Amino acid sequence: MSSNSKKMSVLVIHGPNLNLLGTREPETYGTETLADIDARLSKLAAELGVDVTAEQSNGEGEIVSIIQGARDKYAGVLINPAAYTHTSVAIRDALLAVGLPVVEVHLSNIHKREEFRKRSLVSDVAVGQVTGFGSMSYELGLRALAAELLRG
Amino acid sequence: MSSNSKKMSVLVIHGPNLNLLGTREPETYGTETLADIDARLSKLAAELGVDVTAEQSNGEGEIVSIIQGARDKYAGVLINPAAYTHTSVAIRDALLAVGLPVVEVHLSNIHKREEFRKRSLVSDVAVGQVTGFGSMSYELGLRALAAELLRG
Amino acid sequence: MSSNSKKMSVLVIHGPNLNLLGTREPETYGTETLADIDARLSKLAAELGVDVTAEQSNGEGEIVSIIQGARDKYAGVLINPAAYTHTSVAIRDALLAVGLPVVEVHLSNIHKREEFRKRSLVSDVAVGQVTGFGSMSYELGLRALAAELLRG
Amino acid sequence: MSSNSKKMSVLVIHGPNLNLLGTREPETYGTETLADIDARLSKLAAELGVDVTAEQSNGEGEIVSIIQGARDKYAGVLINPAAYTHTSVAIRDALLAVGLPVVEVHLSNIHKREEFRKRSLVSDVAVGQVTGFGSMSYELGLRALAAELLRG
Amino acid sequence: MSSNSKKMSVLVIHGPNLNLLGTREPETYGTETLADIDARLSKLAAELGVDVTAEQSNGEGEIVSIIQGARDKYAGVLINPAAYTHTSVAIRDALLAVGLPVVEVHLSNIHKREEFRKRSLVSDVAVGQVTGFGSMSYELGLRALAAELLRG
Amino acid sequence: MSSNSKKMSVLVIHGPNLNLLGTREPETYGTETLADIDARLSKLAAELGVDVTAEQSNGEGEIVSIIQGARDKYAGVLINPAAYTHTSVAIRDALLAVGLPVVEVHLSNIHKREEFRKRSLVSDVAVGQVTGFGSMSYELGLRALAAELLRG
Amino acid sequence: MSSNSKKMSVLVIHGPNLNLLGTREPETYGTETLADIDARLSKLAAELGVDVTAEQSNGEGEIVSIIQGARDKYAGVLINPAAYTHTSVAIRDALLAVGLPVVEVHLSNIHKREEFRKRSLVSDVAVGQVTGFGSMSYELGLRALAAELLRG
Amino acid sequence: MSSNSKKMSVLVIHGPNLNLLGTREPETYGTETLADIDARLSKLAAELGVDVTAEQSNGEGEIVSIIQGARDKYAGVLINPAAYTHTSVAIRDALLAVGLPVVEVHLSNIHKREEFRKRSLVSDVAVGQVTGFGSMSYELGLRALAAELLRG
Amino acid sequence: MSSNSKKMSVLVIHGPNLNLLGTREPETYGTETLADIDARLSKLAAELGVDVTAEQSNGEGEIVSIIQGARDKYAGVLINPAAYTHTSVAIRDALLAVGLPVVEVHLSNIHKREEFRKRSLVSDVAVGQVTGFGSMSYELGLRALAAELLRG
Amino acid sequence: MSSNSKKMSVLVIHGPNLNLLGTREPETYGTETLADIDARLSKLAAELGVDVTAEQSNGEGEIVSIIQGARDKYAGVLINPAAYTHTSVAIRDALLAVGLPVVEVHLSNIHKREEFRKRSLVSDVAVGQVTGFGSMSYELGLRALAAELLRG
Amino acid sequence: MSSNSKKMSVLVIHGPNLNLLGTREPETYGTETLADIDARLSKLAAELGVDVTAEQSNGEGEIVSIIQGARDKYAGVLINPAAYTHTSVAIRDALLAVGLPVVEVHLSNIHKREEFRKRSLVSDVAVGQVTGFGSMSYELGLRALAAELLRG
Amino acid sequence: MSSNSKKMSVLVIHGPNLNLLGTREPETYGTETLADIDARLSKLAAELGVDVTAEQSNGEGEIVSIIQGARDKYAGVLINPAAYTHTSVAIRDALLAVGLPVVEVHLSNIHKREEFRKRSLVSDVAVGQVTGFGSMSYELGLRALAAELLRG
Repeated sequence: MSSNSKKMSVLVIHGPNLNLLGTREPETYGTETLADIDARLSKLAAELGVDVTAEQSNGEGEIVSIIQGARDKYAGVLINPAAYTHTSVAIRDALLAVGLPVVEVHLSNIHKREEFRKRSLVSDVAVGQVTGFGSMSYELGLRALAAELLRG
Repeated sequence: MSSNSKKMSVLVIHGPNLNLLGTREPETYGTETLADIDARLSKLAAELGVDVTAEQSNGEGEIVSIIQGARDKYAGVLINPAAYTHTSVAIRDALLAVGLPVVEVHLSNIHKREEFRKRSLVSDVAVGQVTGFGSMSYELGLRALAAELLRG
Repeated sequence: MSSNSKKMSVLVIHGPNLNLLGTREPETYGTETLADIDARLSKLAAELGVDVTAEQSNGEGEIVSIIQGARDKYAGVLINPAAYTHTSVAIRDALLAVGLPVVEVHLSNIHKREEFRKRSLVSDVAVGQVTGFGSMSYELGLRALAAELLRG
Repeated sequence: MSSNSKKMSVLVIHGPNLNLLGTREPETYGTETLADIDARLSKLAAELGVDVTAEQSNGEGEIVSIIQGARDKYAGVLINPAAYTHTSVAIRDALLAVGLPVVEVHLSNIHKREEFRKRSLVSDVAVGQVTGFGSMSYELGLRALAAELLRG
Repeated sequence: MSSNSKKMSVLVIHGPNLNLLGTREPETYGTETLADIDARLSKLAAELGVDVTAEQSNGEGEIVSIIQGARDKYAGVLINPAAYTHTSVAIRDALLAVGLPVVEVHLSNIHKREEFRKRSLVSDVAVGQVTGFGSMSYELGLRALAAELLRG
Repeated sequence: MSSNSKKMSVLVIHGPNLNLLGTREPETYGTETLADIDARLSKLAAELGVDVTAEQSNGEGEIVSIIQGARDKYAGVLINPAAYTHTSVAIRDALLAVGLPVVEVHLSNIHKREEFRKRSLVSDVAVGQVTGFGSMSYELGLRALAAELLRG
Repeated sequence: MSSNSKKMSVLVIHGPNLNLLGTREPETYGTETLADIDARLSKLAAELGVDVTAEQSNGEGEIVSIIQGARDKYAGVLINPAAYTHTSVAIRDALLAVGLPVVEVHLSNIHKREEFRKRSLVSDVAVGQVTGFGSMSYELGLRALAAELLRG
Repeated sequence: MSSNSKKMSVLVIHGPNLNLLGTREPETYGTETLADIDARLSKLAAELGVDVTAEQSNGEGEIVSIIQGARDKYAGVLINPAAYTHTSVAIRDALLAVGLPVVEVHLSNIHKREEFRKRSLVSDVAVGQVTGFGSMSYELGLRALAAELLRG
Repeated sequence: MSSNSKKMSVLVIHGPNLNLLGTREPETYGTETLADIDARLSKLAAELGVDVTAEQSNGEGEIVSIIQGARDKYAGVLINPAAYTHTSVAIRDALLAVGLPVVEVHLSNIHKREEFRKRSLVSDVAVGQVTGFGSMSYELGLRALAAELLRG
Repeated sequence: MSSNSKKMSVLVIHGPNLNLLGTREPETYGTETLADIDARLSKLAAELGVDVTAEQSNGEGEIVSIIQGARDKYAGVLINPAAYTHTSVAIRDALLAVGLPVVEVHLSNIHKREEFRKRSLVSDVAVGQVTGFGSMSYELGLRALAAELLRG
Repeated sequence: MSSNSKKMSVLVIHGPNLNLLGTREPETYGTETLADIDARLSKLAAELGVDVTAEQSNGEGEIVSIIQGARDKYAGVLINPAAYTHTSVAIRDALLAVGLPVVEVHLSNIHKREEFRKRSLVSDVAVGQVTGFGSMSYELGLRALAAELLRG
Repeated sequence: MSSNSKKMSVLVIHGPNLNLLGTREPETYGTETLADIDARLSKLAAELGVDVTAEQSNGEGEIVSIIQGARDKYAGVLINPAAYTHTSVAIRDALLAVGLPVVEVHLSNIHKREEFRKRSLVSDVAVGQVTGFGSMSYELGLRALAAELLRG
């Protein structure tokens, strides 16, 4: 049943600059670090009956490689592409190439920010998008992805 | 403590054409009706410790009036503006006027559809947006809104 | 044979401000009222072997509801969306949802008017469009729709 | 001389969400309600030798019907189309159809707000526009319309 | 009465590539050839009390010359400019120069196709347009043109 | 109390070509000259309890200097920037620099004219705008400005 | 001196629909035909010491061929591309290929007409352009071209 | 016959930077100064039976005033607005206000230069335009204007 | 085996102005004429086991007719549409109608030239495109097309 | 060596509204006046071995004339065109005409302000641009210009 | 003759995600891997008398470094920039900096895909482009580059 | 005093391709290498009383990481983002996240180059920008940054 257990593993990808979360400007972004978010995702994953593994990178090419590597090990991808949301065709192509279900999340509400943040190169290759709920966006996205995987 | 109990009530607004859900083309949209969604939201609301009331309308002006009426009875609004997402400044203005926290949800992934569906007049006055997960979008949106209300 | 006789019924929808036809500025718009147009359509329908029922509304939401109500009673829709042609995603969505053959008509030639009238949100969900022939646009549209229905 | 006395009656139309004026956020919008504005307009009308009647609606179609009904009862229209300023071709068409002199007013300075508020579908079918002076915009607009009517 | 009988003659112009109709891909475009369409138009013309003559050309300049030649021989032009609809100012200018009533028709619904097909250089110099009803578009267009001529 | 009396003085600025008013094409623009308008403004100012001084210039730089000179002598500016409305960042900057309340007026309805007249570089640094009422636009603008000053 | 005498010959090209000049609507376009214009150009050419030969065509490809043929026979081209001004890259390429001095003329002022007439595909490969002076545009253009040739 | 002799006087207006002509970069612009051009225009004017007076200014407002002053003294205006061609609504308005026939000329071919030089605010209020023939543009423009005046 | 041998014949179409190749400006375009290119293509075709026939035309309509005629005689089309690449919907439609495999070639690199040359109306109905390698573009295109045909 | 000593003189041009610096809103713009800036520039010039002369004007035409006058007296121009940066083709043309090295400076960071301030008509005719460092922008610009002149 | 032998070496660069070729979805992309393509290129290179070396990277910066490293080792670059075609100014700049002849290839026809794939930041710094022929695009590109190198 | 001494250290970041400076095309870019620029910056830094450390990278993600690492070690950032200026939201976000004062410099005048180089994603998050003065841009930028730091 390895194919089935594979399906139950989710890769979480954190894009550029997310490694800074919680280590700075706590009054604004809170004291929650990326490690805290990953811990909460692991806990929720257990409840939902899936596994999660998280990776962070500042590099577009590295994220492409991480996505490529997901093909045989994970059943779905939960991604916060951060800045690359708006500029990376390469990440879009990698997601298309591996063909796994993708859920896109954003901490902030990208519709309240600069005009150029309104264009997402990822959203139309994802199942759906969750934006604006801080770290809870990840948890909601994981719920959506897990439901997708368990149903599929 | 009526002000507190008020804070715990959520108004769910379903925009135009959503009344047709589940009564037609079950092979495409499933057999779930709007009533089914509302029932599931009520169940989830109970888990989350909030109340939900749902209204549906095909009329822009009626939705404006429904939102206006929410000011003194609800603590937050969960809205699927459907077609009016892209065309209604009046609904945007009503949401701004009542000043309640708003969460916007969509059944389909609006980024995969016609170009004109990419513009939302609601998203930058909402806390955040959930799009693309079918009826689960509502449930995720309710979780986000409840968390916002319980934290606020 | 109810399914067949159903197929032979056509719903005619007149959009906003069309109720004013013929009651004003006869030197410009002629003395023909909406009732006159409906009478001529009934006469033509008889020749063509179909039935017609006409409704007029100034409200976008009401027109959405009228379209929704057509699903089980009519075989096709002949619509002059008037001003809503250019602004209503909700009417477009209703037409898509009921899935009946649609023919779009316009009294005036919309290509000779303001720039914003060039965009139609209905035309690409319709079978076809007739524009610019005054009340005769309706008659031509009915002929086209009847042929579509009788062939279908 | 009924045609003359008809000329002296002005219909004031308040668009969507204006019914909320003064009942909320007094520190921002003041404590003046729509009823207060209407009272002040009545007083000014008396000075100017005209009558005023005011109506408010949140519905686009309802406003279309109100405008249509003005044709035989009023000599001019003073309108604050609010959100529909930027989206309603139907209201524009109704104003064109009844052919009465129209003055457009706005409480806030629409040029200081979102980009989409810069487009008005009403202003080029109106005699003129007054924008940015709070409730005084209505009073200035009434002066302009009364002068237009008394001169015409 | 030659001027009157002249008025009753209609020139039908088929633009580029329409000569291929019916000779190929019958499952898609049907087995009806351009000759069949012309025959049906002749039959309908007889019913309507007008004459029709049809010409087809793949050349923009030739169509310009055909239109110029229509000035003294025909009372109106029924034209399917096909590809030149979207690119030919010369055909537009020829239609303007001869000053005859023009009706524009299209087999397919041009609003369902590529973006560049949405621009018509002919539609605002025509009386009106019929689009999307296959060969029936020609018949509806002839009815409209005949009515225009008989009324004029 | 010189600061108070200063507050009560209003500078009226007439932009380029307004010096031609009334001296030409009386059938179109009436026989009212700029001097007549200034006289009427003075009369109205007296009623309103303020003073007005008017200046006209065809030069962008001169108008900038006039505005700069207003800083210590006037409490507000009533300006018809005419052609410079659409092209002058320098006048906008001068108005921003002196920081006085500004009301913008236009004789004609700028929304009925060429596309490039729709852009105003002044309107979002003004309190509000009055457009389309001929010379009455000035009077309405003065009323608005006086109210602003007396309230401020 | 054949090369010199060649330099003194000018080819005049009249684009589509110009063959209709003067034969129709004399109250609007005058009674001057293309032949009249050519005669006047011949007379002026004699004064200026050059020869002129004129050709007219409705076909884009034919005009391309005419231009190609000019290479060895003419010293310059005076062209009124008419409708092809705005749509023909092929004529532009032909003019570039033969490399003769080109002067572009227009009867009407193209800046007063439809928006699409503002784009000229010829003007930046011409020495210069004369537009708006009726048939005199040709004469002025010939003067300019002759001066260019005699100087060159 | 003063009104007639007035008609025969032409005002030539040279816009900003044209005073530098001929005094600099003779290898590029030739050694012809503005005075030389004016002298040649005077000579040509004598041939054509009109008078010319020339003025140059670097100031937009000054040119506006010069145009205003032409109303009672000249029968037509020959203008090279230079840089103001592309930016001055005020000069356009002055030309519209005085209502004299205007011919626009340019030394260089503005279609071969920066994109922003393609927009002219003057050309659609002029009779016509001559561009690209160096100082000869002025002479051609004077011929066109004289013909217009002598015909008018 | 006629259908198979038919498949092996390729029609080469040279668009407008390509007939001038090599006969002019040899220092720029080389001394190779269109005949030379055709000869080289014939030689390469022999190597590749296909036949080639070449046609050149300056006329859009003629090229449409040439393409139509290819349907029963050729297995594929190698086309350099030259100027019509950017303007001809008719050629695009002809290529779509005959349904043969198409390869598009260009001598120059169209991406290094004027902005309007960036739009190709042919490239998305072709198998692929080769641009920028001078006459070698044809040879590469023929290789691609032959491979397509031999594989298909 | 007068040509050499000429080279060492720099003209500093301050555009519209800069004369207000330091005399107002000291808490925002500091207490430094334009005279203070000029004094600091003189001091720095002495260090750098060049001379500076400064002029300020609110008028576009005046600045054009100032630039024209620089041709024989100065070796370079240091300019803060202020508002005219974004609107003046005339100043651009004057800078091109005199052909001196130009350095463009701005007090504020123009990239942080209104959208229309992003377009500079001067920057591509300048050696370079310094923006955003308050009065220090001038000093940096002078260093750059002096280096350019001493190297040239 | 090392400089000559250097000229005969070609660097092949495969952009992001091309490492996945052939290992997945064989029914769509075939079973050909990148190694297969490289082997075929080596074989063809031998025929053509050049050497090829291939590198693949998912990273934009790495590709920049690979290109920089080519300067002294290779005579030309054959590049399939894949996703970076549309987004990388850095790769464009690297190609410009090393100054080697570049040929751009694409497996798929980029003109048939998303709108954003129509913009190439590489094509106007390349000799030419081959697009749409699958792995054969590389072979055609190598032929073109070899010819360029052997001729140069 | 570590916080103070920290403030005095400046990180210089050189973006992609700048490592090639001076090693190639000396006639164009001079013989100055990046090491030479860094040496001159060190010398100037000593004069200004600050320290400088320089890093170069071709990778977007690496530059993001370098910026992140600056937070605790440097008081300000002097950055030439080169190609990433126009494409990198990630670098913008990193600069925003670390919150240090940033000065942006460019060797060439980016306003004289391709259209896409006009958009900078960095300039509105920087204190200011210096562009166009070759390696001197760095020195001027360092002066500006040092002043900012010493004042702050």
